[in-house]
Amino acid sequence: MAGCCAVLGAFLFEYDTPRIVLIRSRKVGLMNRTVQLLILAYVIGWVFVWEKGYQETDSVVSSVTVKAKGVTMTNTSKLGFRIWDVADYVIPAQEENSVFIMTNMVITMNQTQGFCPEIPGKTTVCETDANCTAGSAGTHSSGVATGRPAFLRAAENFTLLVKNNIWYPKFNFSKRNILPNITTAYLKTCIYDAKTDPFCPIFRLGKIVESAGHSFQDIATEGGIMGIQIKWNCNLDRAASFCLPRYSFRRLDTRDTAHNVSPGYNFRFAKYYSDPNGAEHRTLIKAYGIRFDIIVFGKAGKFDIIPTMINIGSGLALLGVATVLCDVIVLYCMKKRYYYREKKYKYVEDYEQGLGNQMDQ
Amino acid sequence: MAGCCAVLGAFLFEYDTPRIVLIRSRKVGLMNRTVQLLILAYVIGWVFVWEKGYQETDSVVSSVTVKAKGVTMTNTSKLGFRIWDVADYVIPAQEENSVFIMTNMVITMNQTQGFCPEIPGKTTVCETDANCTAGSAGTHSSGVATGRPAFLRAAENFTLLVKNNIWYPKFNFSKRNILPNITTAYLKTCIYDAKTDPFCPIFRLGKIVESAGHSFQDIATEGGIMGIQIKWNCNLDRAASFCLPRYSFRRLDTRDTAHNVSPGYNFRFAKYYSDPNGAEHRTLIKAYGIRFDIIVFGKAGKFDIIPTMINIGSGLALLGVATVLCDVIVLYCMKKRYYYREKKYKYVEDYEQGLGNQMDQ
Amino acid sequence: MAGCCAVLGAFLFEYDTPRIVLIRSRKVGLMNRTVQLLILAYVIGWVFVWEKGYQETDSVVSSVTVKAKGVTMTNTSKLGFRIWDVADYVIPAQEENSVFIMTNMVITMNQTQGFCPEIPGKTTVCETDANCTAGSAGTHSSGVATGRPAFLRAAENFTLLVKNNIWYPKFNFSKRNILPNITTAYLKTCIYDAKTDPFCPIFRLGKIVESAGHSFQDIATEGGIMGIQIKWNCNLDRAASFCLPRYSFRRLDTRDTAHNVSPGYNFRFAKYYSDPNGAEHRTLIKAYGIRFDIIVFGKAGKFDIIPTMINIGSGLALLGVATVLCDVIVLYCMKKRYYYREKKYKYVEDYEQGLGNQMDQ
Repeated sequence: MAGCCAVLGAFLFEYDTPRIVLIRSRKVGLMNRTVQLLILAYVIGWVFVWEKGYQETDSVVSSVTVKAKGVTMTNTSKLGFRIWDVADYVIPAQEENSVFIMTNMVITMNQTQGFCPEIPGKTTVCETDANCTAGSAGTHSSGVATGRPAFLRAAENFTLLVKNNIWYPKFNFSKRNILPNITTAYLKTCIYDAKTDPFCPIFRLGKIVESAGHSFQDIATEGGIMGIQIKWNCNLDRAASFCLPRYSFRRLDTRDTAHNVSPGYNFRFAKYYSDPNGAEHRTLIKAYGIRFDIIVFGKAGKFDIIPTMINIGSGLALLGVATVLCDVIVLYCMKKRYYYREKKYKYVEDYEQGLGNQMDQ
Repeated sequence: MAGCCAVLGAFLFEYDTPRIVLIRSRKVGLMNRTVQLLILAYVIGWVFVWEKGYQETDSVVSSVTVKAKGVTMTNTSKLGFRIWDVADYVIPAQEENSVFIMTNMVITMNQTQGFCPEIPGKTTVCETDANCTAGSAGTHSSGVATGRPAFLRAAENFTLLVKNNIWYPKFNFSKRNILPNITTAYLKTCIYDAKTDPFCPIFRLGKIVESAGHSFQDIATEGGIMGIQIKWNCNLDRAASFCLPRYSFRRLDTRDTAHNVSPGYNFRFAKYYSDPNGAEHRTLIKAYGIRFDIIVFGKAGKFDIIPTMINIGSGLALLGVATVLCDVIVLYCMKKRYYYREKKYKYVEDYEQGLGNQMDQ
Repeated sequence: MAGCCAVLGAFLFEYDTPRIVLIRSRKVGLMNRTVQLLILAYVIGWVFVWEKGYQETDSVVSSVTVKAKGVTMTNTSKLGFRIWDVADYVIPAQEENSVFIMTNMVITMNQTQGFCPEIPGKTTVCETDANCTAGSAGTHSSGVATGRPAFLRAAENFTLLVKNNIWYPKFNFSKRNILPNITTAYLKTCIYDAKTDPFCPIFRLGKIVESAGHSFQDIATEGGIMGIQIKWNCNLDRAASFCLPRYSFRRLDTRDTAHNVSPGYNFRFAKYYSDPNGAEHRTLIKAYGIRFDIIVFGKAGKFDIIPTMINIGSGLALLGVATVLCDVIVLYCMKKRYYYREKKYKYVEDYEQGLGNQMDQ
């Protein structure tokens, strides 16, 4: 017991520190300090200050709603004078992170189910237009005019109000893209502009497409996918008011015609009607338009002890590199290497008789 | 060749270890052991046991389906006696991670396209209700009563069955939120409750809104977005049965009226009909309601050699900090610092004539 | 000032390196080199070459469009001869990351709102089929035949064209799943096959379900959720052409009948018609079908200085483990441990009179 206490005491009251050779040399000293300085600058300047290595990060969790606004009218011989509002051109009426604005269409009216000469078989099964049309009138009756302008080309002036609520679960931090300092009056008139109104959440369709470097009339005719990207990169060690959304726009489908099946973006849907006698007929609409995908991404960082310690720990280990580098030069490259080696090393042979080989005194 | 072998042999059979000064001092020894203990406690207790620094993590990949249930009826002068079921109030009929329950509406019936005094122009183009209505009857004919109660206020008792399948690709681990020990009988009667039924995947709308601290009748009247958050934080080093979903509820739109355009949540859609003479008319519905976004997030951790080694490595490097700290105190602050320095350092001058300066023997 | 410069000069031109005992012993040397070799092999081979520890990673941001193709026909006594195309069986017409193909249905035709003996009350409020049906004809009139085959069983041959655009924001790298070397001619005829056509983005429904190990006819009858998983694991230090999508298929709903409410996948929707006299009636459709969720995931890695340095730093710290391990053996386990201890340690007592205890010369 007493022996155990003695060992424990010896262990507790002991302090070991490596023995050091201190070489006073202008060349080696300067080199050593330079390498140490570079490593320190990297660890402090780059890892800590620039890349915020002391922070833990979390990925964004997001919820988006989109509201389109705008009315336009068309006047064609088949359809007559018509007004188009939100309920007509947004299909489906609501989606989660996305909104589709119909800008062009091919309408096949009054399709009824009945018998007609061609029965769909193996050869026609891929033709989705293969439905029998009892009435001779109405197939592809409108929408494809010469010069291929988009039917609802006025959609250029429609607007999207994007509401985005983000959340960083690890830090329980949430924020909306309608910032607290934005007034209702401002929101009623503003249109997003990268320079003048970077935080206005209302986007004019034409401006979105142009910002991505494309022509609205082209994309409106054939359809396409536009990405509205919202970047939330937040440093939560600073005030919440510095955590701001950054908007950017990108076209997500390709226009590369060389290897492209079904270019643009379109889909088919039908409106179903019942005849007075109870039979059902439908109007098939091939809708071309722009799908706006709201893509929210970003990372938040906040001080945390673990990444800090990992970076300090590996920074300290890297400082050891300075010594290793200088050792290589001093002990292998310099003229007086044997002199320095003698100072640094104490050679011990495995055999007692080898004791005489020791160069250290 | 032989010389090469000799060098290789010397290299292979060599072992180098730093020379150490072992100082037997109560003060310094205790300080040294205390600092080492603190660092060890941090590395083992905090990094490994608490934060599970030995684990690699993966983010969740998720698939969600939602099924609403509930029927209600209304009796108004315009619409008469009406029954509302799932096919009427869920719009669109299915979505990916979301479900919209219509709770209130403004119906504009029997809109036809025709000529009327006001032609939409620049001044009215932002009015989405600017459509010409041929019949004088029916605009805003129902739904907005005094006191603004929600039209389908009984939606409070509707239920949502949320099925969620998650997957951690890195670990090829998948699980469902309907746990294996839940019986069909239980699922037919249970309603989620944070205390009594925390794993029942069936949610009563009223309870969701209340859990988030809001009034169902308020949100039902104006519309809103509710987040049903499912957290899957799993420690895959334990049995799969411990990997459980945690539900929480949050309102995702803001009620802050000061800076809020189009508060609540609503959208417009139309039902299209054909007249006996073939003309089309529509009923425009401005649907107010609650969109429930199912937000799935979480991280799984599993033992992996790389984060373990990174943490051990930087932990070891941090242990070196104890020595550095004690060195500073021993060599710069203590009375006998010159005595200790003499023991630790061996001074070597760059010049042979400087040999006399060596203080170490 | 001059004193200050002297201290600074002394500091700048100083170089310290630990003093080392070099033990020449076959046993200890070999052990030391073996441990060092193992640690080096782990750091270089596993951490750097295999796990690419020198890379920073980013998670994928993705946009998906899906286009279904296929036509089929049915011939039943109630519905007569009918043709089904994309506009009939895709509900809703477009979604963001998902597509629903109706494969089976229960149709309740000509539902009108009117009075009938049963008024929905507390007991029937959960019955979503509780609507009053004025006409006696038509409830559940079709779709459920004996042997339960799926109504649109030919959906097995329908195809999905999946277009996927991915983006790694941190590296500003984007790519599409229609690879640059794929020709339009190939895309017009190809069908995905894991072996022969692994990069064809067109999937036959039957093949998807079979690849996941299920029977198409079973899933078509009851409905279900299939995941089309696209994995984009990219090493951006290599050419962009090596960054390729990998497809896999998984069933996301469970078939485990023991604890399963509402198995399969179905939802209700209605088509609304107006009678010649202006009254509204509807056809209620309970749609069974397969929802295809396109799940895109993956990580891209690219060389970055910080993870490289963290791994080098902790690798260096781990190399120190070799010394610690060998020290334990040499100083505590070997016969000549006292001899080695004498060489490694220099004992210093706290008291000047303790100077005589020093065993080091």
